[in-house]
Amino acid sequence: MADRTAVLAALRAQHIETPSWAYGNSGTRFKVFTQEGVPRNAYEKVDDAATVHRFTGVAPSVALHIPWDTVQDYADLAAHATGQGISLGAINPNVFQEDDYRLGSVCNPDPAVRQKALAHLLECVDIMDATGSADLSLWFADGTNYPGQDSIRARQERLSEALRAVYDRLGGNQRMLLEYKLFEPSFYTTDVPDWGTSYAHCVDLGSRAQVLVDTGHHAPGTNIEFIVAFLLHRARLGGFHFNSRFYADDDLMVGAADPFQLFRIMSEIVLGGGLEPANGVAFMLDQCHNIEPKIPALIRSVLNVQEATAKALLIDADALHRAQSEGDVLGANAVVMDAFNTDVRPLLAELREDMGIDPDPIAAYNRSGHFDKLRAERTGGAAAGWGA
Amino acid sequence: MADRTAVLAALRAQHIETPSWAYGNSGTRFKVFTQEGVPRNAYEKVDDAATVHRFTGVAPSVALHIPWDTVQDYADLAAHATGQGISLGAINPNVFQEDDYRLGSVCNPDPAVRQKALAHLLECVDIMDATGSADLSLWFADGTNYPGQDSIRARQERLSEALRAVYDRLGGNQRMLLEYKLFEPSFYTTDVPDWGTSYAHCVDLGSRAQVLVDTGHHAPGTNIEFIVAFLLHRARLGGFHFNSRFYADDDLMVGAADPFQLFRIMSEIVLGGGLEPANGVAFMLDQCHNIEPKIPALIRSVLNVQEATAKALLIDADALHRAQSEGDVLGANAVVMDAFNTDVRPLLAELREDMGIDPDPIAAYNRSGHFDKLRAERTGGAAAGWGA
Amino acid sequence: MADRTAVLAALRAQHIETPSWAYGNSGTRFKVFTQEGVPRNAYEKVDDAATVHRFTGVAPSVALHIPWDTVQDYADLAAHATGQGISLGAINPNVFQEDDYRLGSVCNPDPAVRQKALAHLLECVDIMDATGSADLSLWFADGTNYPGQDSIRARQERLSEALRAVYDRLGGNQRMLLEYKLFEPSFYTTDVPDWGTSYAHCVDLGSRAQVLVDTGHHAPGTNIEFIVAFLLHRARLGGFHFNSRFYADDDLMVGAADPFQLFRIMSEIVLGGGLEPANGVAFMLDQCHNIEPKIPALIRSVLNVQEATAKALLIDADALHRAQSEGDVLGANAVVMDAFNTDVRPLLAELREDMGIDPDPIAAYNRSGHFDKLRAERTGGAAAGWGA
Amino acid sequence: MADRTAVLAALRAQHIETPSWAYGNSGTRFKVFTQEGVPRNAYEKVDDAATVHRFTGVAPSVALHIPWDTVQDYADLAAHATGQGISLGAINPNVFQEDDYRLGSVCNPDPAVRQKALAHLLECVDIMDATGSADLSLWFADGTNYPGQDSIRARQERLSEALRAVYDRLGGNQRMLLEYKLFEPSFYTTDVPDWGTSYAHCVDLGSRAQVLVDTGHHAPGTNIEFIVAFLLHRARLGGFHFNSRFYADDDLMVGAADPFQLFRIMSEIVLGGGLEPANGVAFMLDQCHNIEPKIPALIRSVLNVQEATAKALLIDADALHRAQSEGDVLGANAVVMDAFNTDVRPLLAELREDMGIDPDPIAAYNRSGHFDKLRAERTGGAAAGWGA
Repeated sequence: MADRTAVLAALRAQHIETPSWAYGNSGTRFKVFTQEGVPRNAYEKVDDAATVHRFTGVAPSVALHIPWDTVQDYADLAAHATGQGISLGAINPNVFQEDDYRLGSVCNPDPAVRQKALAHLLECVDIMDATGSADLSLWFADGTNYPGQDSIRARQERLSEALRAVYDRLGGNQRMLLEYKLFEPSFYTTDVPDWGTSYAHCVDLGSRAQVLVDTGHHAPGTNIEFIVAFLLHRARLGGFHFNSRFYADDDLMVGAADPFQLFRIMSEIVLGGGLEPANGVAFMLDQCHNIEPKIPALIRSVLNVQEATAKALLIDADALHRAQSEGDVLGANAVVMDAFNTDVRPLLAELREDMGIDPDPIAAYNRSGHFDKLRAERTGGAAAGWGA
Repeated sequence: MADRTAVLAALRAQHIETPSWAYGNSGTRFKVFTQEGVPRNAYEKVDDAATVHRFTGVAPSVALHIPWDTVQDYADLAAHATGQGISLGAINPNVFQEDDYRLGSVCNPDPAVRQKALAHLLECVDIMDATGSADLSLWFADGTNYPGQDSIRARQERLSEALRAVYDRLGGNQRMLLEYKLFEPSFYTTDVPDWGTSYAHCVDLGSRAQVLVDTGHHAPGTNIEFIVAFLLHRARLGGFHFNSRFYADDDLMVGAADPFQLFRIMSEIVLGGGLEPANGVAFMLDQCHNIEPKIPALIRSVLNVQEATAKALLIDADALHRAQSEGDVLGANAVVMDAFNTDVRPLLAELREDMGIDPDPIAAYNRSGHFDKLRAERTGGAAAGWGA
Repeated sequence: MADRTAVLAALRAQHIETPSWAYGNSGTRFKVFTQEGVPRNAYEKVDDAATVHRFTGVAPSVALHIPWDTVQDYADLAAHATGQGISLGAINPNVFQEDDYRLGSVCNPDPAVRQKALAHLLECVDIMDATGSADLSLWFADGTNYPGQDSIRARQERLSEALRAVYDRLGGNQRMLLEYKLFEPSFYTTDVPDWGTSYAHCVDLGSRAQVLVDTGHHAPGTNIEFIVAFLLHRARLGGFHFNSRFYADDDLMVGAADPFQLFRIMSEIVLGGGLEPANGVAFMLDQCHNIEPKIPALIRSVLNVQEATAKALLIDADALHRAQSEGDVLGANAVVMDAFNTDVRPLLAELREDMGIDPDPIAAYNRSGHFDKLRAERTGGAAAGWGA
Repeated sequence: MADRTAVLAALRAQHIETPSWAYGNSGTRFKVFTQEGVPRNAYEKVDDAATVHRFTGVAPSVALHIPWDTVQDYADLAAHATGQGISLGAINPNVFQEDDYRLGSVCNPDPAVRQKALAHLLECVDIMDATGSADLSLWFADGTNYPGQDSIRARQERLSEALRAVYDRLGGNQRMLLEYKLFEPSFYTTDVPDWGTSYAHCVDLGSRAQVLVDTGHHAPGTNIEFIVAFLLHRARLGGFHFNSRFYADDDLMVGAADPFQLFRIMSEIVLGGGLEPANGVAFMLDQCHNIEPKIPALIRSVLNVQEATAKALLIDADALHRAQSEGDVLGANAVVMDAFNTDVRPLLAELREDMGIDPDPIAAYNRSGHFDKLRAERTGGAAAGWGA
């Protein structure tokens, strides 16, 4: 049986990072629905992230997206975050939202565009130096829409060149996390379409380059926990961009579409030692709350990761190992299902009380009147959104 | 052997409709890239559609999207089209781009929103009366993102009610085409997710309600030509929204991703009699040219449909039937592949010369200097795009 | 809040049918692994089904597959079942395992083969008369492997003709359940590939023709609960063939791959009234236990359906309806998730004690020594398997 | 423009290997249909492969499957092949068709089973020594069906250990080709599920370990030509198992389902230098002709690869490169499509006449009376099939 004290200690130490962009308006190509009380700049996004941390206790940092979160003084933004009880997390460069990037950024056939993109990546490392961020989180929208449009090989070489330049610029305590995605916005080839491509580039670069797994970026049927276990085993799992999907990169709340999959992923993490801080696995959300209110959706998402983690921690590892060794298919599966079927909400309520926060974060937030306050305060200016 | 004269006659009579919105800027949720020379209003979109017809000879109508193509006087727009040598085609209502539609349009839980959406649909029938359009092309973005968010059954009832009201409003020579789509922008349920749902509603309504097949709206692995053959056989195939995809609803140029699939679809059309105007199958494009220039992309797309049709017409139907009856698997397949492997470009060049147009439409357009003219002329104002 | 007494009553009344063929050996095209203690004929399969019922209390019938379960005297087999405390359920004709069926059964281009297949279907109705079975469960492996191999339309007409002949032969209390499947063993077209095709044929035939949903027979990304809700709403949901899959028609234990999906399906059933016997929804398993022992796997599967049903019954329908009406996305989702996250095992243990069976059926079976007994007894003869 | 002489020379030098097992009976888990004239042993399979080479001129070797093709004296079999004008190609060990392999072969939790599997692999290298085969083609059915059934990490370690032992046993001119497959016969995890896993193990082992791409082994939507280009670029593309699929691992004739995809794959091969023998890319078929006659199906398949290669060779590489460099999306795509749309059958007929074979291999085979001869001769004994 899993040790209750150890389980609680692990849960208390968990660190889930929320993304600044999830607090702003988002949508699909068909429509971005506007919501009330949405932050208008990076400072207000930090405030919202701090709110989520205040109610959950396990979300003490916020990831930034540059240039969406561009500010005059990053050290000041970091100090603001500290004042709110959180810190600034991963830096996410954006090299896909200018007309120059129509045919790609670092893989663009035009050297001038590649140069521009690379300069932005390097600028983001400067920002990391200012914010104290440890992780540079790279996602490239690069790819092509039509067969023949560009050379797959040439684009790989351009990618290698840019990654090398950025990697060499990193400071000793900084990492590069390389995300992959099957498709969208490119619809024929994507230059980093799968974990294998990301892994190969990371191995080329060095040990501080690691793969970033976004749970919504796979082909249908892909076994994500296999990838997680494989990368963790080879010390190449940099972290997650958590969200969930029924179809493509739907960016729904993590755990909303397939809570059992999230549990299986967290089980590989727990069983493989990935919860230990030394292993450096970053647990970050990357979601779009197109139709639901942002802050409670993020609280819900943090809780979903936490609940999956709690269930994973409850797996009786000895019993599991025994059944596996004996080839007891049903028995080994039952050990895992027993943990999944357990209702961990009472355990987590206990943990929260112990941590001095409300045992029911959603109800507490709803009671708090915080949303009405935001709605009243955030009335002028332009709401933040994708692209702003 | 297919009769050459009949093949040429069928090709000459073909009618492929282009969509007004494909001439404007489009993109993904990540970025809409702006292009030069893009039309700024419905009149200029009609002009571009007329250009495509001028170079291809088989694209004599343009579909409208309301309110993107709202004008003061639809009869005047129709006259403008006539003056350019084309006509106005299907009317496509838009009930997804206002904040009111966050939880759906005709399936929204709020009766006031449903009423508003219905009013727009009915207004579009008024526009059909003014433009002389025969087809109301309905696509609903309606659906939900999270399990439990709304009742699947209640939404079906609301859908039935709205469709009935619109159907009853149609004039005697007007049809309702009901499109289906697996997902996007809704990511859990979609209220008309597949052809079966559309078909069931059409059967409820009456013979002038027919299914609209968008070639990009299916689950991976779906055999689209089966659906086409099935619906045509039951007189419920209203028409197509052509485009192509490698992944989801990528909206690439039709025939770009899987020309063999397009050929198989057109083969079912030809063999099932769907090319005969009496069967009322509408061949419409519905694409986004995110990174490639609009007018040549639409010319290319029209040619792709035409080439697939030509190949389908070349199938030796007698030989095919004979091999099928004898259970000759390889022989029957070979009859079909023989048509597909034929290079039909010389045949189509001949057809075009016969029709008095350039045998190579793309080269002719590129030589024409038309794009430079548009680029020079269309400089002020706001370029049309999704949402404008 | 759901009423506990009503929940228990509904669970006590539940009826899950196991399939005779799941007790025999099965496998993939690569290998059928043999297991010990496997039944050697229909009588022994009935015995095993009775064992599953004895330990679960909710599996009081067994489906037969003809000719795999051919016996001299079906009334005698039915009496044997009664003696074991269960009854004979649906009859499943097999028209795919003879060389004659290489190009299909009722859709075969050869009229003699079609005639042979039809004769078998009609013989199965005779067997229903003898066994007292109410449901004829039809699955056709028919389809084609190569484009052009046969005419989609002609095959639909042959299908219609055969279904009509069988439907007209049914007695007044007998139903035809028409199953669909995307692919396998046919790899290009399948003659009943999706629910829409099955539905259209059922509507053609009459009210006693209904759609059978096999949970493993869909394209990736298909929302099965939508189909379930849609068909139930239109009184065309005949029942289920339950199993689960990660990829294709994997035929794993129901609930093993996606317990949340199973819960969503059962939620639509519960909320739509599908648990009421009057609605005639048949809950049948259809699985292959390729590597795990058969009887405990079937017990596990029955329990999985039962647990999903229990969770669905716990949904607070009033609260759900309220949140849905108010457009409270997170609130409505939370009502559903609250039920899913509840651990229903204590409730079901209580139910079982009340029914006079062991609260932990798996443990009880393992303790019982039953498997050792079977292993000792069933030593001569040929083990039953697919095809025998 | 591509140089005609060079194109013909490249086509004349092409070498496509057929698999011995495709000449025997095959099927799905539902049924293996028996055919007439099927070979009864390895010698007769070699005869059939020689027949395919005689009619196509480009299929001068045959791959073996051990133990399906076990013979007393492999040198004698090789001599028999030489006498027929072909050679013995890749050796494919089979570690999935014994009851011992229920839970895997080299990844099995039981060390004794792992040892047995490894011994078979090593024995296959002995056979390579006897036959002069250069390639050991490894596919493992290993995996699990249920979450928790076994440890993903432990299985990876067992896999590494076995691969290392085999790799170290290889002779200096021998390679190991490691195949990957998403799923089937394992339905939850597969131990080598994707190219990334295979690539990582190959990199671990050394330069003579390379990835084998089976075109039917990917998740839906996977861009196979990207993988091909990536691996070729890194000198890790060992070769292909060609076949085609609409759904899963359908094992249809290569080019039958998506001829444009096959062309795109061959285009990456041609443009990346993969046709040069020095690059060591093996072009092998791996198919099941479940319902169509074997020998003509293999001739058809060889021709399909040849036609795709011819089209790829016709790509105007200079024009393509120019358009790509200029960012001319439509122009670059047009260069590729122009090659694809060309009817290469006249060119190939010319090539064949030049090589002294019939310009229409299928018609020539059908005229030859060879099948009637086989049917008459091969009457006693057991037809070869999967498993025999």
